[in-house]
Amino acid sequence: MKTVLTSGVFDLLHAGHLNLLERASELGRLIVCVPTSEGAYRAKGRRPIIDFEGRLRLVNSLKCVYMTIGFYDNDHLDRIIETIKPDIFVRGDDWADFPGRKKLEDMGIEIVLLPYTPNVSSSDIRQRCIKD
Amino acid sequence: MKTVLTSGVFDLLHAGHLNLLERASELGRLIVCVPTSEGAYRAKGRRPIIDFEGRLRLVNSLKCVYMTIGFYDNDHLDRIIETIKPDIFVRGDDWADFPGRKKLEDMGIEIVLLPYTPNVSSSDIRQRCIKD
Repeated sequence: MKTVLTSGVFDLLHAGHLNLLERASELGRLIVCVPTSEGAYRAKGRRPIIDFEGRLRLVNSLKCVYMTIGFYDNDHLDRIIETIKPDIFVRGDDWADFPGRKKLEDMGIEIVLLPYTPNVSSSDIRQRCIKD
Repeated sequence: MKTVLTSGVFDLLHAGHLNLLERASELGRLIVCVPTSEGAYRAKGRRPIIDFEGRLRLVNSLKCVYMTIGFYDNDHLDRIIETIKPDIFVRGDDWADFPGRKKLEDMGIEIVLLPYTPNVSSSDIRQRCIKD
């Protein structure tokens, strides 16, 4: 069985996340790397609504997920990937040219882009909470 | 194996929901009944942020959940319970005197109250989104 790895903040877990994770899990045993809230803030300039422990636990509780790994920054994520040596790295197709793509390809890891689900996002959910 | 049934809106799925569902699943095969958004609005006076399909799907995707059943109103939920005849009905201990408790006990269904998780709720998450 192939090992599939992906990473994401997974704030306010929703059907769009699930679409991606379930499709990714059809490719092999799915490992999901989730950044700390500090790490997500440094990378995206926004602190997640749900804390690190809650995001990690919720993703880990999904049937389609084999296991989760928390990480602090890109350097930590690189080491995780080098250690695990996944066969496939999955990303949403909204971000095909992500930093580090070439490095993964040079390691012989296949990059699979899966369809991004429009009209469902953590930002939309935040907006709906504000308007509620 | 015992059949365990619980019901809830499960809007903005969080660690508090997961605490209850995982503990409930330790008692037997867990079936979770989830109301439509219209049903939740009639019962609680507030429309969930996440739509019915999204809430049902997310709960159904949890490792600890055997299956979900959507329902429209209390009458529908009563028929589901009468049809499935669960051994145990689980509720959070924040709402021990819920309507219909006596009816369930008269049917020979054991009521198990599980600890409600303080400081985590869908309302808190909504508030954090507003303040963000």
